[in-house]
Amino acid sequence: MSLSKILLCLDTDPQPSVFDAVVAVDAGVDQLLRQGGVSVDDVRNLIYGAMFTRGPGDLKNTAVFIGGSDVGAGEELLAKARECFFGPMRVSLMLDSNGANTTAAAAVLCARKHLKLAESTATVLAATGSVGRRVARLLAREGATVRVASRQLSRAQQVCDDVRRLVPDAQLEAWETRETESTLAAIDGAACVVAAGAPAAQLLPEEARREAKSLTLAIDLNAVPPAGIAGITPQDKAIEKDGQILYGAIGVGGTKMKLHKAAIRRLFETNDLVLDAEEIYSIGSNI
Amino acid sequence: MSLSKILLCLDTDPQPSVFDAVVAVDAGVDQLLRQGGVSVDDVRNLIYGAMFTRGPGDLKNTAVFIGGSDVGAGEELLAKARECFFGPMRVSLMLDSNGANTTAAAAVLCARKHLKLAESTATVLAATGSVGRRVARLLAREGATVRVASRQLSRAQQVCDDVRRLVPDAQLEAWETRETESTLAAIDGAACVVAAGAPAAQLLPEEARREAKSLTLAIDLNAVPPAGIAGITPQDKAIEKDGQILYGAIGVGGTKMKLHKAAIRRLFETNDLVLDAEEIYSIGSNI
Amino acid sequence: MSLSKILLCLDTDPQPSVFDAVVAVDAGVDQLLRQGGVSVDDVRNLIYGAMFTRGPGDLKNTAVFIGGSDVGAGEELLAKARECFFGPMRVSLMLDSNGANTTAAAAVLCARKHLKLAESTATVLAATGSVGRRVARLLAREGATVRVASRQLSRAQQVCDDVRRLVPDAQLEAWETRETESTLAAIDGAACVVAAGAPAAQLLPEEARREAKSLTLAIDLNAVPPAGIAGITPQDKAIEKDGQILYGAIGVGGTKMKLHKAAIRRLFETNDLVLDAEEIYSIGSNI
Repeated sequence: MSLSKILLCLDTDPQPSVFDAVVAVDAGVDQLLRQGGVSVDDVRNLIYGAMFTRGPGDLKNTAVFIGGSDVGAGEELLAKARECFFGPMRVSLMLDSNGANTTAAAAVLCARKHLKLAESTATVLAATGSVGRRVARLLAREGATVRVASRQLSRAQQVCDDVRRLVPDAQLEAWETRETESTLAAIDGAACVVAAGAPAAQLLPEEARREAKSLTLAIDLNAVPPAGIAGITPQDKAIEKDGQILYGAIGVGGTKMKLHKAAIRRLFETNDLVLDAEEIYSIGSNI
Repeated sequence: MSLSKILLCLDTDPQPSVFDAVVAVDAGVDQLLRQGGVSVDDVRNLIYGAMFTRGPGDLKNTAVFIGGSDVGAGEELLAKARECFFGPMRVSLMLDSNGANTTAAAAVLCARKHLKLAESTATVLAATGSVGRRVARLLAREGATVRVASRQLSRAQQVCDDVRRLVPDAQLEAWETRETESTLAAIDGAACVVAAGAPAAQLLPEEARREAKSLTLAIDLNAVPPAGIAGITPQDKAIEKDGQILYGAIGVGGTKMKLHKAAIRRLFETNDLVLDAEEIYSIGSNI
Repeated sequence: MSLSKILLCLDTDPQPSVFDAVVAVDAGVDQLLRQGGVSVDDVRNLIYGAMFTRGPGDLKNTAVFIGGSDVGAGEELLAKARECFFGPMRVSLMLDSNGANTTAAAAVLCARKHLKLAESTATVLAATGSVGRRVARLLAREGATVRVASRQLSRAQQVCDDVRRLVPDAQLEAWETRETESTLAAIDGAACVVAAGAPAAQLLPEEARREAKSLTLAIDLNAVPPAGIAGITPQDKAIEKDGQILYGAIGVGGTKMKLHKAAIRRLFETNDLVLDAEEIYSIGSNI
């Protein structure tokens, strides 16, 4: 008899995510162990419970998903969980706090259907948030020239520095985008723009988007009206308008959901995976 | 392969109900997602997790159960959950905080086996509690003349007003019942009395019950001795005594349990149900 | 169709144990109902949920596991849970807070493979902790002469008194063991020593262990280096060294894990079991 697939969900929010739980069930997990309000101090004991209950050969049937609305807190749990492992005593881990990894990976997977990223310049608006940083990172790894845009130049520069530590040959530029004029400058010459701003924050007015003649692709990851990029509706999925290909949050969401499930399934193939943005993106390349 | 039936249990108590969980499992739910200490502010995110994880055609396989000891708090969660839905993006909901809906529905289902409710007068003792209010509401919908009894006339009157808003043609009377004499007056001429008081609170002494010559049916929903209606034991189920048919809490409990399971199963037939007292009572009419 | 096997896990820690959950799943439990941060005041309502949802003939399919890091708190939950039952309305219970029962039982099961306990003297070091007390209790029941050792004589004496209340004919001696010399005295003439101290606390230096010529068996239940008994490594499982048979924590752990699973399976055979140290030890005698 094969062992049950157990997914330990470590959630930094007091109410553990229902979204992540349903996706896990639909990806074939047999038993969910959901822990809410998890702090770094809880991690060792929880991970030990996952590590020390099955033999090394069976540990691929236990995996850990880290979620919650606070991506920084999730990253700390991930780091702490990795410290607990030794030798073959380990279980596979996935980080997707705030859906940031699956969203960013799905956005870049959508972009790459339409552009040769290695030959393209892409602008990421609101690039300092958890999703934007990951979009920039994944675009940079694909060889794109990435314009990292933020209302504060220093924060944009910080993201460039952070990405460069992970992707040494990244081609990055920090841009300050405070109003339409500076935003237009940041996308002038770029083939692609991705908006990763807060819900209901408009980053690019409709007229400005139309004027940006270099753009062939615009992706808006904001699902709550008004759109981050005006003229895009959440349901847009590779629709053509004004000579541009447009994606909205729900249009990207189908890819995101497939990716999320594929990543969960992947966790149960071996016991030594750590699925962060890059690994999830890589899984998406094969589905 | 068919999707797992997932029941999201939103419980307003810190420790989510074990009772509701076991019943759900026995009603065929595959996966329980149990959330404890849920407040109104948590609802949107939790319900979105249920709404946005499966396609509209599959959403009937996800449902929500609202429970906990505080019925008012449960009603607030239900109202908030309904606000989250739009178009086909919805999941079925059931409210049974404190077991109030299934208990009240079961009591009235028992009553109706023995009486033509539309032609009867029924007295509800302690009618201002969460169960009593629902018993009054369901009896009124069946066309009974309902005497709503409470130690405070103003509170009884308030329940009458509340029920009348939901059942405009209800025949309701507010009665003040402070001691045996006024309680006897409130049941004089009634064919049925239902006691819905707090545990271990005696509302009607044994001699008084025997003296009430108009009564053909007495139902006591209190499971903790002493009985709310003296002479009834919790296990009584349609037993005859002193020319009256008697039900105790456990005697009604069998019907309550069947109803609870039937309602849970019903949740998974379509994605647009809201099961409150009336709908649960209506399900009971068919089992 | 047979009913699902439901295990209600009452955990006194805020984060309910992952270890206990995985073991339960691997022992064949279908549905886990995990409650964290359970206090004595929560017990009645939770146990009632387990008792009043299935008929007496089906109650063997619902059971309760009490866990958490605080053994005293777990014992209080167990006592409270037992108070809730009446007549056939009961469910089987198991206590294994801090793994104390399964660890102690496994240690004595290992000891009994090598010694006739009824004819042996055994020293328990750090015998006043939750595991040590149980090791002393089980050894005493097997008829061994048990030396209960602690840094404080009064605490050792207290454990002797407590064990004697449960095992009236127990042969117990209280020993004060503050440094190597007094520890050596406490094991001089004993065939077996079990160290049940805190993680990383060395109780017996290596040279002293070798000098203890009466010892034929040494069991160290501390998994975190340095060992409680120097010269034993956690993985040691009945290995011979210096003329002694040695067990480390992981060496005992295989038996502990088998025992834990067997005890969980046992819970679902009838609805009237209370599995504390003795009952778990007894299950181990048959596997």
